[in-house]
Amino acid sequence: MLDKLFKPNSIAIVGASTKELSIGNVITKNLQKFEYKGPIYPINPKSEEVRGLKAYPTIFDVPEEIDLAHIVIPPKFVPQAVEDCGKKGVKFVIINTAGFKEMGPEGEVLEKDFLARAKNYGLRIFGPNCQGIINTDPEIKAYCDFTFTYPEPGYISIVAQSGGVGAVIMQNLYDLDVGMRMYASNGNASDISIPEIMRYWGDDEGTRVILLYVESLSNPKEFMRIARQVTEKKPILAMSAGRTKEGARAATSHTGGLAGGMTTELIFEKTGILSFRDTEELCQAAIAFATQPIPGGKRVGMITNTGGPAIVATDALVSNGLEIPPISDKAKETLKGTLFASASISNPIDVVATAGAKQFRSALDVMMEEEQIDSVYINFVTPPFVDCDSVAREFAEVNKQKKKPMVCNYMTDKPQWKETTRILKEGGIPCYNFPETAARALAALTRHHEIRTREIGDVVEFNEIDKERAGHILQKAKEAGGENLSAGEVYELLTIYGIPVAKWRTAENAAEAEKAAEAIGFPVVVKVDSEAIDHKTDVGGVIVNLTNAGAVRSATGMLNKTLGTKGALKFFVQRYMPGGRELIIGAKSEKGLGHLIMFGLGGIHVEIFNDVVFKISPVTTAEAQEMLTSIKAAAVIKGARGRRGVNQKKVKEVIQRLSQLVTDFPMIEEMDLNPLIAHEDWVSVVDARIRI
Amino acid sequence: MLDKLFKPNSIAIVGASTKELSIGNVITKNLQKFEYKGPIYPINPKSEEVRGLKAYPTIFDVPEEIDLAHIVIPPKFVPQAVEDCGKKGVKFVIINTAGFKEMGPEGEVLEKDFLARAKNYGLRIFGPNCQGIINTDPEIKAYCDFTFTYPEPGYISIVAQSGGVGAVIMQNLYDLDVGMRMYASNGNASDISIPEIMRYWGDDEGTRVILLYVESLSNPKEFMRIARQVTEKKPILAMSAGRTKEGARAATSHTGGLAGGMTTELIFEKTGILSFRDTEELCQAAIAFATQPIPGGKRVGMITNTGGPAIVATDALVSNGLEIPPISDKAKETLKGTLFASASISNPIDVVATAGAKQFRSALDVMMEEEQIDSVYINFVTPPFVDCDSVAREFAEVNKQKKKPMVCNYMTDKPQWKETTRILKEGGIPCYNFPETAARALAALTRHHEIRTREIGDVVEFNEIDKERAGHILQKAKEAGGENLSAGEVYELLTIYGIPVAKWRTAENAAEAEKAAEAIGFPVVVKVDSEAIDHKTDVGGVIVNLTNAGAVRSATGMLNKTLGTKGALKFFVQRYMPGGRELIIGAKSEKGLGHLIMFGLGGIHVEIFNDVVFKISPVTTAEAQEMLTSIKAAAVIKGARGRRGVNQKKVKEVIQRLSQLVTDFPMIEEMDLNPLIAHEDWVSVVDARIRI
Repeated sequence: MLDKLFKPNSIAIVGASTKELSIGNVITKNLQKFEYKGPIYPINPKSEEVRGLKAYPTIFDVPEEIDLAHIVIPPKFVPQAVEDCGKKGVKFVIINTAGFKEMGPEGEVLEKDFLARAKNYGLRIFGPNCQGIINTDPEIKAYCDFTFTYPEPGYISIVAQSGGVGAVIMQNLYDLDVGMRMYASNGNASDISIPEIMRYWGDDEGTRVILLYVESLSNPKEFMRIARQVTEKKPILAMSAGRTKEGARAATSHTGGLAGGMTTELIFEKTGILSFRDTEELCQAAIAFATQPIPGGKRVGMITNTGGPAIVATDALVSNGLEIPPISDKAKETLKGTLFASASISNPIDVVATAGAKQFRSALDVMMEEEQIDSVYINFVTPPFVDCDSVAREFAEVNKQKKKPMVCNYMTDKPQWKETTRILKEGGIPCYNFPETAARALAALTRHHEIRTREIGDVVEFNEIDKERAGHILQKAKEAGGENLSAGEVYELLTIYGIPVAKWRTAENAAEAEKAAEAIGFPVVVKVDSEAIDHKTDVGGVIVNLTNAGAVRSATGMLNKTLGTKGALKFFVQRYMPGGRELIIGAKSEKGLGHLIMFGLGGIHVEIFNDVVFKISPVTTAEAQEMLTSIKAAAVIKGARGRRGVNQKKVKEVIQRLSQLVTDFPMIEEMDLNPLIAHEDWVSVVDARIRI
Repeated sequence: MLDKLFKPNSIAIVGASTKELSIGNVITKNLQKFEYKGPIYPINPKSEEVRGLKAYPTIFDVPEEIDLAHIVIPPKFVPQAVEDCGKKGVKFVIINTAGFKEMGPEGEVLEKDFLARAKNYGLRIFGPNCQGIINTDPEIKAYCDFTFTYPEPGYISIVAQSGGVGAVIMQNLYDLDVGMRMYASNGNASDISIPEIMRYWGDDEGTRVILLYVESLSNPKEFMRIARQVTEKKPILAMSAGRTKEGARAATSHTGGLAGGMTTELIFEKTGILSFRDTEELCQAAIAFATQPIPGGKRVGMITNTGGPAIVATDALVSNGLEIPPISDKAKETLKGTLFASASISNPIDVVATAGAKQFRSALDVMMEEEQIDSVYINFVTPPFVDCDSVAREFAEVNKQKKKPMVCNYMTDKPQWKETTRILKEGGIPCYNFPETAARALAALTRHHEIRTREIGDVVEFNEIDKERAGHILQKAKEAGGENLSAGEVYELLTIYGIPVAKWRTAENAAEAEKAAEAIGFPVVVKVDSEAIDHKTDVGGVIVNLTNAGAVRSATGMLNKTLGTKGALKFFVQRYMPGGRELIIGAKSEKGLGHLIMFGLGGIHVEIFNDVVFKISPVTTAEAQEMLTSIKAAAVIKGARGRRGVNQKKVKEVIQRLSQLVTDFPMIEEMDLNPLIAHEDWVSVVDARIRI
């Protein structure tokens, strides 16, 4: 429980300084300025007071109990200070000081030192190399941080791995006059982790939505476990930096964590976290989440008192996947009686610029009543010739009903329309400066609905699998010391795991290859079966469409001549199966996480268009289905425009069986079925590769 | 010349009202409040004064000359008021009143009436159904508009077809404390047009960048002609609404113009206008354009005093097509001497949070000197323990040199860092609240560089074309009354225009088809040649790969049996050419503009992925080249990963020849070559369609 961290009854600052621009002084000042409700104990051996507060030479001189202590002294003194805090019975320590693990081995030793001491006393550490925490709760008002934004109370809590980005988010919400609940930026996260903070806020009634910024996850599995629990309770909106190659490099060097960038986004997806790729969009969405209910679908009703912004909003809503369906005849009848003659009665409802409270209210009521409408988008420009305060009061009134979410593109000069602005704010209407911003916020609410109602599916356990035999094959291969399994080993593993493979045989030499071909039936393909030759086709080690024994003979002869310098080659003979769609299914181990499972169309689709999707193993039935429908070439899988699709059930099963294989054997570093040939009624692997 | 519209020496308001919330009163108030430098003449027959100004019963009672008059009286009185203005010698009239063409035939009559009267007197009309104009020039200060944002002088001029969107843009720049030069929103645009306004600002020294919002263009060709001239002089940043089907419908009903949405974006592209799809992004880019030089390339040098935002910025810069190259060893040497030990000396340069003026200046100097750097991105958080004013002064100092553009993600609480903010503003540093926003603004500057330096290319005139014969074929087809040309006609036209077509012959009956096949050489494809059967393959009217005369005979027999209910069919026989890449090249007439030329890969690429690009005819050499490289499947055209590409020179030539054909004959409504089979050394049309 992090209660005494976020709601401390008393705070000490070890290193509280009298120097105006020092961090120890700034933290003291922030606590004072924010009007912290408990006692503040500056610890300073050289001064009797700091910023008008009585200072104590050591922490032991403080006569009362201390819940939380800041440590802002140089790194080498930190372990002893932690020890002292432990002795004194302090419950939480925020170490703002930098110069530990992030600076190399010497710092790492210091970090381990203070961690060990803390553990002895059951003392929890926040940081080091961090900003700290903020709690705006009027009964607490803890500003345990050296930044400069003083937020009002609100419903949004923010946890950011980077204090810089956390500050950008906090400042932006502040600039937009939106409140915040709690804030945390824990730097090196040596003890208290981001998941732990998320879990705490998951149980905090005052937090309605959690904003998360991460650069990399040090313990992806733990993060997933907790994220799943928290998203059951409230929305988490998150952004992961490092999704470009260049950004990922920067993120890794910044934090040294494991999973970053794209992998983190997959983790967000799997755990029901709403993912963003733009800091401003994240902030703007949070504003809507803080006050609005989640819509039941993607059908938007639009109300506008100006033409152009309605068109821009239409473009933005539609490109964000929302719909603007017609309204009912009944609704139109109602509106004919209430709106001005020049109004446009459809969806959007253009109430026209002269519309007052009555017209807006009627349009709002209609949209709230309409069955085919899930959410409401409003364009509200404040005409100098309209009583805008009354209009705003109607918005607030309707919003109180919490029937459907509403967002407002509010076009005004706030200093001139101060009262209107106040009514909208206190009425909990999320207001935006641009049609696109409001549209995206509404789209985010809708995306959350989709995530909350999506089918998770089960991880199917295929039972007829001889896991022991599979383990034996892999163990043997590992002991042999090679990285790549031989074709025979690969196909045996696939067969054990019930993944359909085109008929195959291994052959110790050319003569055996001929016999194998006869046994399999023509046409066949002959491949060199050598662990040393990885990319067979690149070196001409594959000869396809051999229709009789003679052809096999000349093929093996040629291969022996061109590639067999180290002696006679072994061969892999397989039924040749042209036609069908070439699919690719793969897996790649991710440290600390498991495997990423990949699916895509083979050939140019993967090589040129990079049209592949990933999921984290183990893949559920629903996830396998989603893989098939979320590639750009989904229509090819499904079949469209007179082209035949492929057997989706069988493809999904292969994905799940492969997922089970790599989950059973984490030693598999990388594998792919490339291609899996898929027809309307059957699928079959014709080439595969496993690296351990 | 619109000089007296934007710089009027005197202004009358016909319909100036004493009623506080009327438009006539608001306009008078705005002129007063904005401190208009010339005399204001309220025209009001019932009152002796309006808002403390002497009012005149009629315009003829004004003793002095009037440059500009507002008309804000009901529509039916407008024609007479215009007549009076003409008689009085007024030069420009802004008709704010609505209720004309936009309301239907009755309003259109009124609009034509006042236009005819204005013409008699050489009086120019702005509007009707419009906001008006604003000029912030300190010597003019004309606020001829009923909106409520009072901008400071600046370098950005805004013209918006929708006053609502124009107001959003103006208000946003105002909120960001960014000045504006002039504003215009001309509603119905019955006389003075948007291109005319753009041309005027092209010559206005005070305007450094023009912002444009359009919903549709009433005269696309005129717009293109003028846009080309203006973009030679200064950047135009523009947004076109209606790019989604739903948005386009809304835009058309809002303005009734011709080209909208996507077509307008193509017009922007062709004329060198920088296109945006987000109002906020448009505003943010304008801020950079107003003060910064255009970069010479896409290589960004980043300077940061905080870690996380540098990662977010890296992601944003790279995803917007920019690069962050390493800096030179020489630069690193310099920085080692000037930066703190904990600084990170590479690109980004992390000067660390404690960096002051000296450190920032050194980093800036290095980036400005570096040959491999084209522009500078700065993350500047204002630490409470740093003298931020001095840092800002260095930014301003370096910016004065105008060596390379710089943008700044400025992370602060402006009320607390008022002086720092002032220095940055007066120093002309474009400041943004988010890393992504700053990155996108820099990307926009860079995009402009690319547009300015792109090769335009020439429209090749192919000379050996017998245009007269082509005209004869089309004329005959038109007189015959059909919409679709017969295959014979299509192929003859293509041949005349030098577009290579697989060997073909028409046949009046089955026997002739057999002879034709023999003459062409096998294999052949036989198609039913009937204007009535448009989608031949859909009805089974095409039989491919016929390898001998007997096969042709049974094919024609079968076709006659299945499709020949109306009598014996005519046939089209063509050499069958399997293999190669299927390309599609098409043209579609756009009213008031010419044709849109389309290019893409055939088959699933066009049908499922919609991977096609458009250009406006006539297509230049450079545009044809760009079409080949800008489809998503460009690598397929070029050849990649061991796959052969196609003959690009020949494909480009076909695009240009087709462009010439439709440009020569605007009567062609739609045509496509689908597919054009392209190999490495030759290309050939195997199916085509022309609709007139």
